Amino acid sequence: MVKFYLQEKVPVSVLPSNKRPKFFSFGIPTYTNLGDQAVSLAQRRYIENEFPEFQFIEILEEDTDDAITAVKEILQPADVVSFVGGGNMGNVYLDHEIARRKVFAAFPENLTISFPQSINFEDTPAGQTELKKSQSAYAKNPNLFLIARDAQSYHRMQTAFDNHVLFTPDMVLYIQARDLDHSRSGALFVFRHDSEKVIAEDLINSLKEILSNGRPLKRTDTVLDTVKRITPSNRRELIVKELEWFSRQEIIITDRWHAMIFSVLTGTPCLLFGNSYGKGKHAYFDWLEHIEWVTYTDEDDPQRLKKLINSLIQRSAHEYDVRKDFRQLDRLLQLHKERFSL
Amino acid sequence: MVKFYLQEKVPVSVLPSNKRPKFFSFGIPTYTNLGDQAVSLAQRRYIENEFPEFQFIEILEEDTDDAITAVKEILQPADVVSFVGGGNMGNVYLDHEIARRKVFAAFPENLTISFPQSINFEDTPAGQTELKKSQSAYAKNPNLFLIARDAQSYHRMQTAFDNHVLFTPDMVLYIQARDLDHSRSGALFVFRHDSEKVIAEDLINSLKEILSNGRPLKRTDTVLDTVKRITPSNRRELIVKELEWFSRQEIIITDRWHAMIFSVLTGTPCLLFGNSYGKGKHAYFDWLEHIEWVTYTDEDDPQRLKKLINSLIQRSAHEYDVRKDFRQLDRLLQLHKERFSL
Repeated sequence: MVKFYLQEKVPVSVLPSNKRPKFFSFGIPTYTNLGDQAVSLAQRRYIENEFPEFQFIEILEEDTDDAITAVKEILQPADVVSFVGGGNMGNVYLDHEIARRKVFAAFPENLTISFPQSINFEDTPAGQTELKKSQSAYAKNPNLFLIARDAQSYHRMQTAFDNHVLFTPDMVLYIQARDLDHSRSGALFVFRHDSEKVIAEDLINSLKEILSNGRPLKRTDTVLDTVKRITPSNRRELIVKELEWFSRQEIIITDRWHAMIFSVLTGTPCLLFGNSYGKGKHAYFDWLEHIEWVTYTDEDDPQRLKKLINSLIQRSAHEYDVRKDFRQLDRLLQLHKERFSL
Repeated sequence: MVKFYLQEKVPVSVLPSNKRPKFFSFGIPTYTNLGDQAVSLAQRRYIENEFPEFQFIEILEEDTDDAITAVKEILQPADVVSFVGGGNMGNVYLDHEIARRKVFAAFPENLTISFPQSINFEDTPAGQTELKKSQSAYAKNPNLFLIARDAQSYHRMQTAFDNHVLFTPDMVLYIQARDLDHSRSGALFVFRHDSEKVIAEDLINSLKEILSNGRPLKRTDTVLDTVKRITPSNRRELIVKELEWFSRQEIIITDRWHAMIFSVLTGTPCLLFGNSYGKGKHAYFDWLEHIEWVTYTDEDDPQRLKKLINSLIQRSAHEYDVRKDFRQLDRLLQLHKERFSL
């Protein structure tokens, strides 16, 4: 039975038929990538804090088909439809792209928002075939606004699609972490194991040597293997636990963009390496270069990296504010409210 | 007497009082920086090609005060006011910032566009004092749209100002160069002499050695010293001449952002170094990373640079398209046209 998360904890199976305008949030992940889970949590926080007029309703990606049918039955003109943000627009994570196409094509008369994404349709016959399918689906919706979370994706989305394209940071940067003033010890290595990984194990081993003088070292990934499934019912406690863990580290070494964001939120020094198509690199230079306790590198010389790490580990957190960078999304929703006198 | 450039060649001293909507383009430079001159030429090309409903009128920066008075007398609600794009928003080039404040504050009821800029208010008492003055002037105009030409400036503008902020490339990327299929010989070094310069002369000399095996080397700057003054009357021929010169080179080595753009337009291999506050670096990563014959570096090791240059000089031009990246500006003017039924 399809589940609708009106609140985070307990889903219901019937959509409310009150007159309050609805904000439908499709594509919510159940897999155990904490970065992607944090995106969906941040979307809820953003709408509930900034646009409380809306009843916010999350729908798991696995329920996409049934939920489209159910939402169509109650949809009103002032309701907003959205699909989850992240780094999976394109042909590399095709299940998500297929769900996204269905949602974008299903409600062409309603304001439809693609929360901030990175995009990567590969320059291969398969990638270009999938791009054509997405172009055809997105083109059905003149009220669709794509949002890019880095400038490279902004360029690519505008090149690939005729839809409106806005530019904001990743939604997770909307979150503000609190009460994380712990003492710090140890270095945490957070590396991906999927097709996007490009950093060599040899280099990771060299970094471990650089950091190992009596310091505890751990290796992990922000994809959990301790739970089988994460939903809006249990994601918050897992994310808070991860942020607490980060806040006890002296430094994070990673190739995961969301590990860098967690480092930003917790004031933890962090060195980010690239993935296969630059999504972390671009987002770093676009939004985070002024945050002194995190940095990005393409360097592979251990001696140069040693200098960089030794400098980075000494830096402490300062005030920062990326709230205003969400203003193009604020304005889109503000204009929508004015249009429908909400 | 104040000059109004209704066409490029010959200015007039009286504004036309016909019913055609006007597009006033303030802040047009008379100094001899060819990059900044190309910005003002590109603005004219963009409006005349894409929005021919408007009578496009350029006003030299030196005429700002008198022109504001004259424009106020004939201004109609559908007219658009604009200030020139470039890399001088901030306290480093204060004359331009002062003219910009006057224009933004003068016509608060008309759509006002700040063409794509980079921004740099220094983190010094003087820089922050000037920022407050700009904040106060910009705040007078609720119809002012700032446009950032790189993501770092987009973040900074949104942080500093409450005005709307859009995101597009530098206007010069709108230009398409033609008939430049010359044979190539030699390397051209294009380096700035102003306060933004950070690259050491020693390093420039090492690069000359790398490139000197029988190849003619020249050094120049895109700021001309062969003419005293450039206006809309003579800028086009000087820019075309510069583009032709670039198109005859095997490679351009530069720290000038617009020298990289001229290399893009002419299909000339180009290596760009940084300036004092990253304006070229950010714009490169935002818009040009997919253009294979140009690249950016922070490297200062001659051996590593030698490898990079030897690879770069072999690359040839391919098709590229950044036209769609101007879509946020297209849409702003499209909505304006709809509002006034133009």
